[in-house]
Amino acid sequence: MRQRFGLPAFEPGWVWLAGAGPGDPGLLTLHTVHGLAEADAVVYDALVDERILALAKPTAQLVFAGKRGGKPSPKQRDISDRLIELARERKRVLRLKGGDPFVFGRGGEEALALVAAHIPFRVIPGVTAGTGGLAYAGIPVTHRDTNQAVTFVTGHSAAGEVPDGLDWHAIGRGSPVVVLYMAMKHLGRIADRFLEAGRPAEDPVAVVSNASTPQQRVLETTLSEAANAVADAGMEAPAIICIGEVVKLRKGLDWLGALTEGRELDPDPFGAVSNAHQDRQSQKGPNLA
Amino acid sequence: MRQRFGLPAFEPGWVWLAGAGPGDPGLLTLHTVHGLAEADAVVYDALVDERILALAKPTAQLVFAGKRGGKPSPKQRDISDRLIELARERKRVLRLKGGDPFVFGRGGEEALALVAAHIPFRVIPGVTAGTGGLAYAGIPVTHRDTNQAVTFVTGHSAAGEVPDGLDWHAIGRGSPVVVLYMAMKHLGRIADRFLEAGRPAEDPVAVVSNASTPQQRVLETTLSEAANAVADAGMEAPAIICIGEVVKLRKGLDWLGALTEGRELDPDPFGAVSNAHQDRQSQKGPNLA
Repeated sequence: MRQRFGLPAFEPGWVWLAGAGPGDPGLLTLHTVHGLAEADAVVYDALVDERILALAKPTAQLVFAGKRGGKPSPKQRDISDRLIELARERKRVLRLKGGDPFVFGRGGEEALALVAAHIPFRVIPGVTAGTGGLAYAGIPVTHRDTNQAVTFVTGHSAAGEVPDGLDWHAIGRGSPVVVLYMAMKHLGRIADRFLEAGRPAEDPVAVVSNASTPQQRVLETTLSEAANAVADAGMEAPAIICIGEVVKLRKGLDWLGALTEGRELDPDPFGAVSNAHQDRQSQKGPNLA
Repeated sequence: MRQRFGLPAFEPGWVWLAGAGPGDPGLLTLHTVHGLAEADAVVYDALVDERILALAKPTAQLVFAGKRGGKPSPKQRDISDRLIELARERKRVLRLKGGDPFVFGRGGEEALALVAAHIPFRVIPGVTAGTGGLAYAGIPVTHRDTNQAVTFVTGHSAAGEVPDGLDWHAIGRGSPVVVLYMAMKHLGRIADRFLEAGRPAEDPVAVVSNASTPQQRVLETTLSEAANAVADAGMEAPAIICIGEVVKLRKGLDWLGALTEGRELDPDPFGAVSNAHQDRQSQKGPNLA
């Protein structure tokens, strides 16, 4: 495939820092598929799907470097050291991260460690869950006339707390649509900050767990109800959360629901036509029905 | 490749609404490559690279639906009508957009038109230029300890003006890193709004044109100088613009510059070590050198 698509050679002693996308192997880039086919060692995170790892060559060394239920997770420094060690053994090292390595992926830190160790590297962006995962739930992060800005925020600081270096009120006011990564644990506290910033209690919220995999689940709720609704539904990480009017578009754009469950899609998800009708009705007087 | 990667069949009469990524064909997803190989008609935007179109099957009908220097561009309605017409002819229709169809790509509008016409469709996310294009310039949109939020904004409203429905001040205050799409024309006015919001004149800015293609150019400047610097350098659209401290990381992470021009990378791009050294120096008294 290298010749056909004009892809670069994967040289021994190099590290490719690559994104694996949100889950569906069909969302892998050609660079990453090529990297998987050529790598001597694949250092992967917990969020990388097994169907994706199955694309590595049979002789490749698979090195787990993620967090997984209960077990202590390797420290960032240890992961970087391992990459350097493998590269110094003249291996082709694919560092494979869920989503995109530069979107809340700590790819920059790993790359700087490689620079310090004089290991040559390449960065391969991936489809980030905040866009691609939501697309699989039928939610576009931008839509004309709805929002001209979208903010991506991590709900989890390095210390595991709600990030405190952020002006949550300014974000809540400035961005009609907010996409939260790794925010399941602190969803209630984050929602409170947005409510304090003046966002309405009924602001639509979608929680998408295991986006783009066969285990994908989508919960639609509101800002004031979100934390309870997630607990009631037993939704678990990994999940991506979207806050804002674009969530309503799911009624019209849930192509995956249409495909797998025959969901009927509504070409007028904001109810613009029926709302206009209601407006006319209401001018005649209050609806007493 | 369909069997090998478990990809869905492209059925006649369907439209696949797909992202082509920022430019480099290696950033195409498997779904999009498969769509290109199978499509009977490819309806593409100006931002889609010729090397990507070359992956369509030789008998495929290529339909241009983008803006291109001077010529009037097809109206959104006309594009949607064309998709519907082609699908009704029982063609496999690939609607190919630069970047991601749901990130300032108007994909939602086209999909809703398909819903209204009862045309079955699938959405294929792509790598958006705001993340992947900047990665090719060595800029991560997030970096630990630098920013826990990033905002993507379009610099161009439907009417071609600076979007006026946005609270630019809140965005400027809330988001340590702001990524602007389609903002070359109004860069000076947008920068002024961020300066009014209290962002520093020396806030680092990177302008990346033709990101991830052989024509990629990168300009580093500051918020107060950006508009003049772009004009002086003769930078042109398409470009992605990044504002914030992460721009400084390019000194350490410009992997493409290292690869193509032998650029020496700095493992300490924020100068944390040397700054600490300078701080110690300055305690001894002013540096008169």
